[in-house]
Amino acid sequence: MPVNPDAVGLTGDPTERAWSSKDCLLYALGVGAGMEDPTGAELEFTTENSIGITQRVLPTIAVVLPSGGPDMSQLGRVDLTKLLHGDQTITLHREIPVEGCIRSTSRVAALYDKGSAAVAVLEVHSVLVEDGQPLFTNTMSLFMRGEGGFGGERGPSAARNAAPDRAPDHAVTYTTRTDQALLYRLNGDRNPLHADPTFAAKGGFPKPILHGLCTYGFTGRALLHALCGSDPSRFRSMDARFTSPVMPGEALTVRIWDDDSGRALFQTVAGDGRVVLDGGLCTFD
Amino acid sequence: MPVNPDAVGLTGDPTERAWSSKDCLLYALGVGAGMEDPTGAELEFTTENSIGITQRVLPTIAVVLPSGGPDMSQLGRVDLTKLLHGDQTITLHREIPVEGCIRSTSRVAALYDKGSAAVAVLEVHSVLVEDGQPLFTNTMSLFMRGEGGFGGERGPSAARNAAPDRAPDHAVTYTTRTDQALLYRLNGDRNPLHADPTFAAKGGFPKPILHGLCTYGFTGRALLHALCGSDPSRFRSMDARFTSPVMPGEALTVRIWDDDSGRALFQTVAGDGRVVLDGGLCTFD
Repeated sequence: MPVNPDAVGLTGDPTERAWSSKDCLLYALGVGAGMEDPTGAELEFTTENSIGITQRVLPTIAVVLPSGGPDMSQLGRVDLTKLLHGDQTITLHREIPVEGCIRSTSRVAALYDKGSAAVAVLEVHSVLVEDGQPLFTNTMSLFMRGEGGFGGERGPSAARNAAPDRAPDHAVTYTTRTDQALLYRLNGDRNPLHADPTFAAKGGFPKPILHGLCTYGFTGRALLHALCGSDPSRFRSMDARFTSPVMPGEALTVRIWDDDSGRALFQTVAGDGRVVLDGGLCTFD
Repeated sequence: MPVNPDAVGLTGDPTERAWSSKDCLLYALGVGAGMEDPTGAELEFTTENSIGITQRVLPTIAVVLPSGGPDMSQLGRVDLTKLLHGDQTITLHREIPVEGCIRSTSRVAALYDKGSAAVAVLEVHSVLVEDGQPLFTNTMSLFMRGEGGFGGERGPSAARNAAPDRAPDHAVTYTTRTDQALLYRLNGDRNPLHADPTFAAKGGFPKPILHGLCTYGFTGRALLHALCGSDPSRFRSMDARFTSPVMPGEALTVRIWDDDSGRALFQTVAGDGRVVLDGGLCTFD
């Protein structure tokens, strides 16, 4: 039995990760900050010494800071080649500092049996070591093809936060670069699927695909600027579902529906209209 | 007397700097590797785990590896705001490994009195700590406005290795990005002249200018591919003079005259025909 049906509630060993101002600058550039107007509004994310500007951190860095990613050892023996990243949620308990050290603990929050596939929901809680208080929480669902049929609950439908059937209130377009993944991977995810055409071809892709979490980061930037006045302290949470791979070089348009409640729906579409991130919900102050 | 006229021959304290594979990848992306064809010929410089490809290092990383740049303390009390980088030469004694540690020692090789200005020539010798043998040497001339008149030798004319009056044998064009300096600065030179429009305006520039050594790195890539078959072990030396600032986003064309002697002349021109690096000489096997 590859997947452990009794995994729910199990936690992994805590891991620690220190990060620096430079790590934050590199992350910001990796998700396109400074590309559109390098001399303007994003200098607080791309520089640490501009006159009158204090460096701040893009909230979505929460997805790369925990060391080594989620601990999946509690799930049993998982075939990584059959693993797909379904949803990703980040919840910011406070603004992320430009340097620090976190202690992160993974927990299996749920395990669902979808028939042929299993879906695991992992939560990673990160506290700032300095004061021991929560900094952010990542929640991700992992879709494991061929691992279902163990008799578990089917769980909720993946579809939620559907995009309204009306024009968005904001539409922010960013263009990714053809070499975007080569830069983004320096944040930690060195999977050659995102860089090596030979490896990508083995996986059935015509060329290397962009990291889903890079698309997520571009999207988070758009939400931060459109909804939070570019102020990371107002960014509370972001939830979205990966629905299609993105090729480096594609344009991404983040469509945002904001009813002034502090909860905005969003989806991200590629230049050809393909929805690449769907079911998006952003909460903010 | 700000400049010490007896500085020639003085050496600074050795400094050590360790670097990693990641530092080399970041440097390569900073000088545009992977931008033109991210799935092709430059994966040996931009990735460390592509199938059948071994990571290698761009020779021009020699300009950023020595810790903290050249030691100028032997020159006396130099006004950094009046300092201009004149020439930069790198000499590779062997191929630079993807990780290691160097010990670097600065030496004042010459000091010239140009009348109103002084020109110092600094050599930085770097040995690989692992075996104590020379790895590369950087030589740079520093033009110090207002520091001349101390009665020293005038020294040689700056003009050498003039571009031939005929069409080049190779012309390689790369486009820098508008955010190029934001990425390049992560290699170490955080001078806000290259990122902060407010600071740049104080220096009389309409916007932040690209690092001269970034232009140098783009140029070195062109030389490596055009003259050395993309093989860093064949790259012996590169010498050039900075003649004009480059704005991020400008295209750079490296014009190369190769007479098959293992010594090629080159210059780099911007899109408007302005020569930005001149008097270039590259030697190679």
